[in-house]
Amino acid sequence: MNQPLPGQPAQVPVLALGDVLLVSLQGELHDGMAEQLQQDITHRISTDRVTGVVIDISGVDMVDSFLGRVLAEIASTAGLLAARTVLAGMRPAVAITLVELGLTLPGLVTALDVDRAMELLNQRGS
Amino acid sequence: MNQPLPGQPAQVPVLALGDVLLVSLQGELHDGMAEQLQQDITHRISTDRVTGVVIDISGVDMVDSFLGRVLAEIASTAGLLAARTVLAGMRPAVAITLVELGLTLPGLVTALDVDRAMELLNQRGS
Repeated sequence: MNQPLPGQPAQVPVLALGDVLLVSLQGELHDGMAEQLQQDITHRISTDRVTGVVIDISGVDMVDSFLGRVLAEIASTAGLLAARTVLAGMRPAVAITLVELGLTLPGLVTALDVDRAMELLNQRGS
Repeated sequence: MNQPLPGQPAQVPVLALGDVLLVSLQGELHDGMAEQLQQDITHRISTDRVTGVVIDISGVDMVDSFLGRVLAEIASTAGLLAARTVLAGMRPAVAITLVELGLTLPGLVTALDVDRAMELLNQRGS
């Protein structure tokens, strides 16, 4: 179980850019935060008529199996609510570690950065 | 086995809107109702020249593996008869539970609400 350390933010901010949600993960994601984030995103998709979710992980040093599962679950849930999820800004070292761990994040669409993720969502939506 | 309770409707109404069928599920779907619904939909597709089916589940609190299978079977059967199926109005909590159960409804297209489902069917049909 990952528990938040004292002084760490308990919630991940979710910004709306048009009809796309932008989630910027920083540092480690703890169990409670992950669950809260998934609920926030699904709630926002349904109330704000969101068609896409961009998860920026450029501030994340390490994606382990827990975070990989959380990301896959967010993408699946968003998909059920008709929103597409793009994972943006993965660091090269993170990609290498993921492949070494055998975690290739099936079902997740990736983009080099947030700009390209937005382009991808706009292209597909048109 | 799910059995209908006394006083519950034994049949799910299927409305025709142009060449699209609109099915609005309310509450729990029982075994017999599910089978009847699938027969109704396939029959209507073949007799009424239907090109799309919208299944509105905004009144459904819980999608379990039984309902998930029924929905997938309806979509597959409709697909074999050249009609596209869109699942509309899934509640956020339902999406989260589905993903937790590992039921991601592959092969089912979703839309936030009935309006968007109709748009989707019209776009693709054109």
